[in-house]
Amino acid sequence: MYEHDKLSALDAITEAQRIAFAPMLFQTALCLRNTGVLDYLDKQGKRGATLRDITNNSNINEYAVSVLLDMGLSGRIVTCKEDHYYIAKVGHFLLHDTMTRVNMDFTQDVCYQGLFSLEEALKAGKPTGLKVFGEWPTIYPALSQLPHAARESWFAFDHYYSDGAFDAVLPHIFAYQPGSLYDVGGNTGKWALRCCQHDNDVSVTLLDLPQQIALARENIEAAGLSHRIGFHAVDMLGDAPLPGEADIWWMSQFLDCFSPEQIIAILNRVAGVMKPGARLCIMELFWDAQKFEAAAFSLNASSLYFTCMANGNSRFYSVEKFCHYLEMAGFRLEKRVDNLGIGHTLLICQKF
Amino acid sequence: MYEHDKLSALDAITEAQRIAFAPMLFQTALCLRNTGVLDYLDKQGKRGATLRDITNNSNINEYAVSVLLDMGLSGRIVTCKEDHYYIAKVGHFLLHDTMTRVNMDFTQDVCYQGLFSLEEALKAGKPTGLKVFGEWPTIYPALSQLPHAARESWFAFDHYYSDGAFDAVLPHIFAYQPGSLYDVGGNTGKWALRCCQHDNDVSVTLLDLPQQIALARENIEAAGLSHRIGFHAVDMLGDAPLPGEADIWWMSQFLDCFSPEQIIAILNRVAGVMKPGARLCIMELFWDAQKFEAAAFSLNASSLYFTCMANGNSRFYSVEKFCHYLEMAGFRLEKRVDNLGIGHTLLICQKF
Repeated sequence: MYEHDKLSALDAITEAQRIAFAPMLFQTALCLRNTGVLDYLDKQGKRGATLRDITNNSNINEYAVSVLLDMGLSGRIVTCKEDHYYIAKVGHFLLHDTMTRVNMDFTQDVCYQGLFSLEEALKAGKPTGLKVFGEWPTIYPALSQLPHAARESWFAFDHYYSDGAFDAVLPHIFAYQPGSLYDVGGNTGKWALRCCQHDNDVSVTLLDLPQQIALARENIEAAGLSHRIGFHAVDMLGDAPLPGEADIWWMSQFLDCFSPEQIIAILNRVAGVMKPGARLCIMELFWDAQKFEAAAFSLNASSLYFTCMANGNSRFYSVEKFCHYLEMAGFRLEKRVDNLGIGHTLLICQKF
Repeated sequence: MYEHDKLSALDAITEAQRIAFAPMLFQTALCLRNTGVLDYLDKQGKRGATLRDITNNSNINEYAVSVLLDMGLSGRIVTCKEDHYYIAKVGHFLLHDTMTRVNMDFTQDVCYQGLFSLEEALKAGKPTGLKVFGEWPTIYPALSQLPHAARESWFAFDHYYSDGAFDAVLPHIFAYQPGSLYDVGGNTGKWALRCCQHDNDVSVTLLDLPQQIALARENIEAAGLSHRIGFHAVDMLGDAPLPGEADIWWMSQFLDCFSPEQIIAILNRVAGVMKPGARLCIMELFWDAQKFEAAAFSLNASSLYFTCMANGNSRFYSVEKFCHYLEMAGFRLEKRVDNLGIGHTLLICQKF
């Protein structure tokens, strides 16, 4: 995807300035959206609107509208002809596209301020940007206490990217008619519940840290499915023994929380206890498995959220590197399905 | 320049994601530059370098290098082929181009944090972003007390954009053989000194606020040119009488500190006292007078610095609108020279 430098020198120096002033462009786009300018231009359609019209229909003054519109022109968010401004396609997506809105809110409300110290985070191997919200080792225990906008935008982002693929992937998993499934890093129990709703016979065991298990147990009791979902509290990085009865070991956006060495260690332990014929099913977002460059860009950008805000050391991997880790841990790839939900990939593996 | 929407829907949704994650791209570019990754890749040239090589030659670990490189791929700053990374043209400009470096440092050190509250600044009409540096009404009295990096980057930016055009514009002004020149908003006296060095006969009078005059006086005494440069302390927005003896009224990046109404008011007062045959010479940066789109983009982005950090209400204008203000104040444009220095425009005007 990124093998060749396709830009001319002129395009490249232009792009360099777009990068140098990227924070201005980002904030302008956000303000054009949040002050109602884009919405008003959208409603005017091909008639367009003058600076005066737009100002009269917004909650900011003419100077404010004019600096936003001129930066909007440079950002290709709007166009202008004979004193009339028009919403451009980029503006349309900023206004109407859910993915774009979720991404933008996440960047502003969760990441923007903390990203200022990205270099510090990279050097420390810690999410030093998180200090803008308080003193926390990682973002996960902080979630319930983030400022309102940050919390809303975090959950909207998580929901948009995590849950979208469940419907699409269920048939692939249940094609194996598993009697027993381990949900490793089962988190809130959402996937375990979906499995039990999808299939009347499967029994699920959630493997996760004790504090996560406690949370998941509540959700599962509330859903009345305690008789079909069991729990096994375990630190996958520790050396406590693992159970080995599952037909399917399921890991959804779990391994992206770990470094390559940790991924190999975890998978090694799983390989050591898996029963013959059992399968490891991994669902992840990989930047080099995306159909569209926009998606690859988004994933690589989101990795820096992990660096700076989440935990300082996880990321979205490339499927190329990830498959190498699988191999090093003793697995061979049996099947790969790309583009499930919002660009998820399912990797189905067996032990060598 | 921005009359037509040239993007396809696919390009536009890609561009929308580039905007949505623009702060990540900006911080990545900065870190690739500041951690030495770009410099190392530049030195490797066409040989390229592996992730391992790059890590061994930087001051950050492999994880940190890998997230930067992958975002760098998406940002077209680097390319990758067969596990070897190469610096791309964008990366070359980020590393070697003075303008790009000055812009980027200015964005990070002066503007990045304050831009978070752009919407607040637009609504308040005040540079609310400045609060990250302390309690100041505008950035000008704060300059000497900004954090070291912010001060350095501010002056580097100011120097790069303000002084570049002086050499180029002097012959245009002295073609009129002025006996007397008023330097309105003369600031530190730099232009007045240049005039006296360029021409042995001209006498210059600096018109500015009393506190600026005090500063300029020191510089001019130090240069031994007090006998040729006079001072007239005045608030150009007030109603104290102005002197009217000058052959040339010079205003360099002065009017961009004011709103359209204020510009017209100031020019009206000047028109009222100018002697017959005198000329008004204005040097400004106009975004729509630029040869390259990168320059228009940079100026429109820099306007948001004025909004958010400098004073809350000034900006780089379009020459189209600016000429309209000249006309409303009673001036006709006699001559326009574009592309002086770093994209400056000289407007020479006479009274109607």
